[in-house]
Amino acid sequence: MVEAVELKYQSMQQGSCAQTLEFQIYFNDHVDNDFNMLFKILPFSSPYFSAGVPGSFHNRLFPKGTLHLVHSNYALQWLSKVPEEVQDKNSPACNKGKTYCTWAKKEVREAYYSLFRNDWKSFLNARAEELVEGGLMAIQLPGVPHGAVPSQTGAGLLLELLGSCLDDMAKRGIISEEKVDSFNMPLYFPSAQDLERVIVMNNKFTIERMEFLSQPEKESFDPILKSLHMRAIAEGII
Amino acid sequence: MVEAVELKYQSMQQGSCAQTLEFQIYFNDHVDNDFNMLFKILPFSSPYFSAGVPGSFHNRLFPKGTLHLVHSNYALQWLSKVPEEVQDKNSPACNKGKTYCTWAKKEVREAYYSLFRNDWKSFLNARAEELVEGGLMAIQLPGVPHGAVPSQTGAGLLLELLGSCLDDMAKRGIISEEKVDSFNMPLYFPSAQDLERVIVMNNKFTIERMEFLSQPEKESFDPILKSLHMRAIAEGII
Repeated sequence: MVEAVELKYQSMQQGSCAQTLEFQIYFNDHVDNDFNMLFKILPFSSPYFSAGVPGSFHNRLFPKGTLHLVHSNYALQWLSKVPEEVQDKNSPACNKGKTYCTWAKKEVREAYYSLFRNDWKSFLNARAEELVEGGLMAIQLPGVPHGAVPSQTGAGLLLELLGSCLDDMAKRGIISEEKVDSFNMPLYFPSAQDLERVIVMNNKFTIERMEFLSQPEKESFDPILKSLHMRAIAEGII
Repeated sequence: MVEAVELKYQSMQQGSCAQTLEFQIYFNDHVDNDFNMLFKILPFSSPYFSAGVPGSFHNRLFPKGTLHLVHSNYALQWLSKVPEEVQDKNSPACNKGKTYCTWAKKEVREAYYSLFRNDWKSFLNARAEELVEGGLMAIQLPGVPHGAVPSQTGAGLLLELLGSCLDDMAKRGIISEEKVDSFNMPLYFPSAQDLERVIVMNNKFTIERMEFLSQPEKESFDPILKSLHMRAIAEGII
């Protein structure tokens, strides 16, 4: 990314006396992230200055007008929390006995969708304040085809599998049923239309380009690989 | 410090419509520092944005002209390394059998002093590039009276005590003599005159104010307290 910006800058300055650019990269993650490990694996002699920024990207993290480029990679599918209604026994959106909205009724899916919209609004508002005028944002995240319900998607089915494992553990008495009931994954995989809608509604950014990266599921289902995958995603919060 | 800057700003803007200031605080320490712990103890709702910056303050850490105020607290007595001559058996400045220059001959003390000057030059050059024009730097560090040799100072005697303990351990065969020989503390406690000289010679900063904070040694010598003190200072590098 640093190289890309440098190349762009050089091509824009062609002919004139281009200054050498200096880069400062902020690495953001939750407070619970292992920043010590991150700092140890950063190259000793790197072409940029590094800083770690702890905190949720759903809130403000930087002073106004101090960022030129924001890059979010495989992170914005995370919601700020589990939708409250989903864990409320008296709500029609209660998702009792499940850990995600894979096969859930409309009310549960709508609770997830509603929080997705609020979270994205917070995210876009925060970044709009922090970016300089004309600043750029590049976002990569796993999404779903337009109109697909979670039970028609790979991620939805994988999370259903996790729920089913926890359910089995409860049935065998390894964990309590209440614990399974109280756990839901705070994830929402949006469609391109979902994203367009929140970005247009928010009105702080324009979409310059949107691309789909296909990532076909492997034909064979490898249980060990899948469990490692799920462990990497969910172990920290279970 | 944030409060002090805010008060100063408000008093300067009195009468006119003062903007609300936003603060971004960078916490710098070596890569080996426990940034995870630091981030966990930062107040959740703080009046500033936080970032951790790993790396040596003897080198550049930030892009040019991006800092308004630098504060170094009890850190600049650390040298970037042990002076090379001090560990060179063929040098007249070799400090064999000792861990600091407390009772050392002139050549050893000069090797420490020479590295102190070089390190401060690097530190001042780096900060001069990073600070905005008119930026401010506040430094607190433990020093010694003018003309005092290390054997006349509390810090020098405490480090001599550490050396003597390591020496005892070598004599009892707990650690090897070579290990003791290879270990020296990379510290230099400057006098006000030492500091004035490096800052004036460097010519990148002017001294606005210099104050002495007296910190009288307690009359009674508490061995447990002293060993805790020494452990906090030296355990990480021994």
